[in-house]
Amino acid sequence: MEITNVGILGAGTLGTRVALQAAISGYQVGIFDIHEKALDASFKLMKELLQQLEKSKRIEEASEKILSRILFTTELEKSVNQADIINESVTEDPEIKKELWEKVGKIAPSQTLFTTNTSYLLPSMFAEISARPEKFCAFHFHDVFYSRVVDIMPHVGTDPAMIPILEDFGKSLNQVPVIVMKEHPGYLFNTMLLALIGAAGKLLTGEIGSIEDIDKSWMVNFHMPMGPFGILDSIGLDTAWHVTKTRKDSASQAFAALLKTYLDQGKLGEKSGQGFYQYPNPAFKQPDFIL
Amino acid sequence: MEITNVGILGAGTLGTRVALQAAISGYQVGIFDIHEKALDASFKLMKELLQQLEKSKRIEEASEKILSRILFTTELEKSVNQADIINESVTEDPEIKKELWEKVGKIAPSQTLFTTNTSYLLPSMFAEISARPEKFCAFHFHDVFYSRVVDIMPHVGTDPAMIPILEDFGKSLNQVPVIVMKEHPGYLFNTMLLALIGAAGKLLTGEIGSIEDIDKSWMVNFHMPMGPFGILDSIGLDTAWHVTKTRKDSASQAFAALLKTYLDQGKLGEKSGQGFYQYPNPAFKQPDFIL
Repeated sequence: MEITNVGILGAGTLGTRVALQAAISGYQVGIFDIHEKALDASFKLMKELLQQLEKSKRIEEASEKILSRILFTTELEKSVNQADIINESVTEDPEIKKELWEKVGKIAPSQTLFTTNTSYLLPSMFAEISARPEKFCAFHFHDVFYSRVVDIMPHVGTDPAMIPILEDFGKSLNQVPVIVMKEHPGYLFNTMLLALIGAAGKLLTGEIGSIEDIDKSWMVNFHMPMGPFGILDSIGLDTAWHVTKTRKDSASQAFAALLKTYLDQGKLGEKSGQGFYQYPNPAFKQPDFIL
Repeated sequence: MEITNVGILGAGTLGTRVALQAAISGYQVGIFDIHEKALDASFKLMKELLQQLEKSKRIEEASEKILSRILFTTELEKSVNQADIINESVTEDPEIKKELWEKVGKIAPSQTLFTTNTSYLLPSMFAEISARPEKFCAFHFHDVFYSRVVDIMPHVGTDPAMIPILEDFGKSLNQVPVIVMKEHPGYLFNTMLLALIGAAGKLLTGEIGSIEDIDKSWMVNFHMPMGPFGILDSIGLDTAWHVTKTRKDSASQAFAALLKTYLDQGKLGEKSGQGFYQYPNPAFKQPDFIL
């Protein structure tokens, strides 16, 4: 099948990035959000991203040309009715996603492929209600431009013929597709990242190492620009808390409790100016940090 | 206290590297091994390392001058009797280490600091038998030249005054010192690395992802030159198996069983030419791996 038109549902950070990359790759895009404001913010974010991409010479076309391929809409039908493939990035709330997929299943053309960009939920939760389980698959991006992995995760009812189509589509979006052979919350990368963060959290709450020394260990030995606590600040401590508190082992619970003390002080990480580090110039980016 | 003379016990890969860096940093070094052959191999490895360091302009002195500061000896006394500090890197066998530290405690000058470079054992296992527990601390290197973290891990009886001395000494060896506040097997970095590897192993044995896709996820999203299975190949699957099999949870046991099938086929990783990948040109280093 040929994909020419892409429907993006949800104009948050990730939906915006996927929509922009699709337009850069030459697809016609319809991005939907129920909030006009979210679409305005999405348009603004795209212009910022395009400026950066232009500066680093990663796009060849003029920004206006790229943006002209994107329709911003609060009407679900307009995003969906021409789409060959849909990628959904709405709030991580099973009820909201179910309600949306039920509507989409009724109005999308019969050949349209359905994909969810959920981070920790599973495609089988929405496949049946979409009334198109065989055409339903998780297709999960990281941040599209820096972290370019896209996870392809079918549920048991996904038609296997959909996998190579998604692989090709992923490559056309400048991503590196990987297959998650069975449903698994967190896919491949996030599973490993969470294990790393869990171990770092346990070292901290167990008073084995300091935030700085734990991060230094990772940064210096692997020549990485940040360690686990720097990464947590960039993910957002609120998101980290939501994920951590669902894990029932005592180490996760202790770390969730620590994260909660940060949230209670309004320290959400980079976006709030304060998390484990202070922003915009966190200690771990200072040249003397690893001396 | 001033450190001018360094005793290195054990001329394996790590002891050799620490001894060489100490000589590069201007210290007089006595490296001891019971096997003449090990000392020959150590000398050869040092010459290779010096060639690489010369090429990348990371040393200023002539190699001969640096090597002239190193005494290679099979006589323990000669390595120890002038030493201000001793760093022990012998086989990870508690009985061998105990026997050595008992001897060293009897012949080393009374002011000499005792440090062990053990990877997974604890300093408290050897502190008493050295007869100098207050001067005994773990001082653990990674690979000295690429991964430059040095862990300082006291046991409960270590004199706290020893910590800043080891910090300064570590910095003088071009390392980034971190403090492990309580005894903890694996220190900071190896604890996190093991968590990452454990998660990757669980994804593989659980048939969630392939070796290549798991590694790709890590490499592409974090812009790293290898993923967990590439790292395992470089660590050595025999070492990985020894560490993994001691963990009693079912995921570690499953992964240890998988590693054992590699060992039974003589696949030990990079050093044997075959592990999860084939060497010297593993798939993950090919330019098309992450396309």
